[in-house]
Amino acid sequence: MFGNFTYCNPTKLYFGEDSLNNLKTELRKYGKNVVLVYGGGSIKKNGIYDDVLRILTESGKNVAEISGVMPNPTLSKLREGIEIAREHQADLLLAVGGGSVCDYSKAVSVSVNCEEDPWEKYFVRFEEPECRLIPVGCVLTMVGTGSEMNAGSVITNEETKQKIGHVFASEDVMPRFTVLNPVYTMTLPEYQMVAGIYDIFNHICEQYFSGEDDNTSDYISEGLMRSVIHSSRAAVKDPQNYEARSNLMWTATWALNTLISKGKTTDWMVHMLGQAAGGYTGATHGMTLAAVSLPYYRYIMPYGLAKFVRFAENVWGIAPAGKTQEQIAAEGLAAMENWMKEIGVVMKLSELGVSKDMLEDLADRTIPLKGGYKELSRDEIIRVFRESL
Amino acid sequence: MFGNFTYCNPTKLYFGEDSLNNLKTELRKYGKNVVLVYGGGSIKKNGIYDDVLRILTESGKNVAEISGVMPNPTLSKLREGIEIAREHQADLLLAVGGGSVCDYSKAVSVSVNCEEDPWEKYFVRFEEPECRLIPVGCVLTMVGTGSEMNAGSVITNEETKQKIGHVFASEDVMPRFTVLNPVYTMTLPEYQMVAGIYDIFNHICEQYFSGEDDNTSDYISEGLMRSVIHSSRAAVKDPQNYEARSNLMWTATWALNTLISKGKTTDWMVHMLGQAAGGYTGATHGMTLAAVSLPYYRYIMPYGLAKFVRFAENVWGIAPAGKTQEQIAAEGLAAMENWMKEIGVVMKLSELGVSKDMLEDLADRTIPLKGGYKELSRDEIIRVFRESL
Repeated sequence: MFGNFTYCNPTKLYFGEDSLNNLKTELRKYGKNVVLVYGGGSIKKNGIYDDVLRILTESGKNVAEISGVMPNPTLSKLREGIEIAREHQADLLLAVGGGSVCDYSKAVSVSVNCEEDPWEKYFVRFEEPECRLIPVGCVLTMVGTGSEMNAGSVITNEETKQKIGHVFASEDVMPRFTVLNPVYTMTLPEYQMVAGIYDIFNHICEQYFSGEDDNTSDYISEGLMRSVIHSSRAAVKDPQNYEARSNLMWTATWALNTLISKGKTTDWMVHMLGQAAGGYTGATHGMTLAAVSLPYYRYIMPYGLAKFVRFAENVWGIAPAGKTQEQIAAEGLAAMENWMKEIGVVMKLSELGVSKDMLEDLADRTIPLKGGYKELSRDEIIRVFRESL
Repeated sequence: MFGNFTYCNPTKLYFGEDSLNNLKTELRKYGKNVVLVYGGGSIKKNGIYDDVLRILTESGKNVAEISGVMPNPTLSKLREGIEIAREHQADLLLAVGGGSVCDYSKAVSVSVNCEEDPWEKYFVRFEEPECRLIPVGCVLTMVGTGSEMNAGSVITNEETKQKIGHVFASEDVMPRFTVLNPVYTMTLPEYQMVAGIYDIFNHICEQYFSGEDDNTSDYISEGLMRSVIHSSRAAVKDPQNYEARSNLMWTATWALNTLISKGKTTDWMVHMLGQAAGGYTGATHGMTLAAVSLPYYRYIMPYGLAKFVRFAENVWGIAPAGKTQEQIAAEGLAAMENWMKEIGVVMKLSELGVSKDMLEDLADRTIPLKGGYKELSRDEIIRVFRESL
């Protein structure tokens, strides 16, 4: 727990089966003009759209809509949303959906009153907003990204095929409130659920596999990882298991709301590799992370051996007696591999549309980071991609 | 993770050796009149008082003081502070000290504009404030209570010898900001440090030893407990170990800011027993908790056996092979006892001024709670007290 840091997460979370009942109370805090933001229309099939619209109507709100936000929200979609929010003079952006819809709404929030080009300012120069933000509220229907309680946003520039995330420093970018109803996640197809589960797990890994200090954050991370492993098995066995679904939903929020990165370095290289593949192919985020994770971790393991040993023992319960450090660490990653196969994530980039001839291009689109145990060269990035095929 | 709940902890935390530098930025958000609240004057010896006063002066603040806040803040001291804050027309209460000073400042905050008697309203009827609150900021110099990021306050009525805590429901009662500098805790006498360490650990226990559901909060608790055990050993060995001191400080905050109680029942019976003893004798909070803990846990163990087995395995690494559930659970509590002795907490109420003839009186002052594995009768309360002697 070294260094100086600030922690502030003011997002108000309403959790549980009845949590949507709190939306009306929250809506009172904002003006009349609400822009409802959602994705491909699944919320119209499962009734969430009707429930939310009824509450908005009963609250006397004047509602405009941004619909069709895609899994990897594009820059042109962002520009479209900014125009709608401007025309409607939005007092609140209400995101109803998964992480992409939340991410997108935050990008609209910081862009509506921004006079510069938002792509250049926020996703190329990584600057903070200086303009007045439009408040964002969320009704989460899919878990994984943690976007419901953080200041992160990921946008894909479809022209340059770049998928870039920016975690803003200011807590003002965070949603003001989020409704977390585990029941909403139960209608999700298994592929999406499993991708979300791996996304959660990998968020924890990215913050855990870095640094050598003895840090409370790493102890919390181990607890969260064990909870994800346990609940994911129960959720895959029975997708209607409310307890498993609610543990996953809660874990997802805490896996990426800055808590477990406090006082330590972090890595995020799996996200750099995965997002390069995702930006290129449009593949589901969590699955791209899954496909590159083990080749990456096995490659960097010798450089952060002590942490991989700790991971094996504390997360996977590997008994250390009579084994070398390398054996313990390798058994930990093997246990992780077995769990990944058990819950059914995609283990190969080739299954996500990536082929050998794309590797140079993917390497060009991969931003190398310095936070992990080994800073990857371009050749090493290609090597990890090749082993992920 | 069952039930509906709300989570909102807006307190902004500034952590680290240089964290006091952020005080000036925070002070800009409040009006001119600041009431500085502190305890017995140790902050004058170690220089923290001078540093804080310099920043207040440089920020152009008009400063009044409430000094001499005692370890168990009394009702008469509260009434005195309310008068000072009223006369000074306080815009901010700046608590510089440990949990008692933070607790006390929150009690002043909710009472300054309250027309009813604060003891009756907040500590007898447990009502929420309806009046305008005075914002509270904290500079923490002692760890343990978690008061720096929660809405709790404990006040002792010296006439009736009642020590009563109220955790307010509203996040408005929480400090607006807290400065957490681990270096400040290094000048603390070992007795105080160890009492604080056990206070942290017991806060986690109170939330952990309840319920039988599979809950993410319990996994986070296990991580926090392991971090406390590890860091406490390092801090007792070398009180100047910055890493250990900072892990303890951070763990204390997260042990009692509502996170690890979300979605589950909690117990708090050790606090009821300990506070009864503390209110009667004035003994240090953490030590009263330590003295009653093992007799209480050993008594309720059969009623919550599965959780005590989990505690033994996941927190203390007890190997289960070839043992009965009772044996595993008992070994976990024995490991806890060894650790308590190792760090040097007080293991007996008799060492804290409690004698056999007080037991009936203590039982009268102990509020029995229903959240734990076994609701204690008056006889059982006396029995636990007797075994704590």
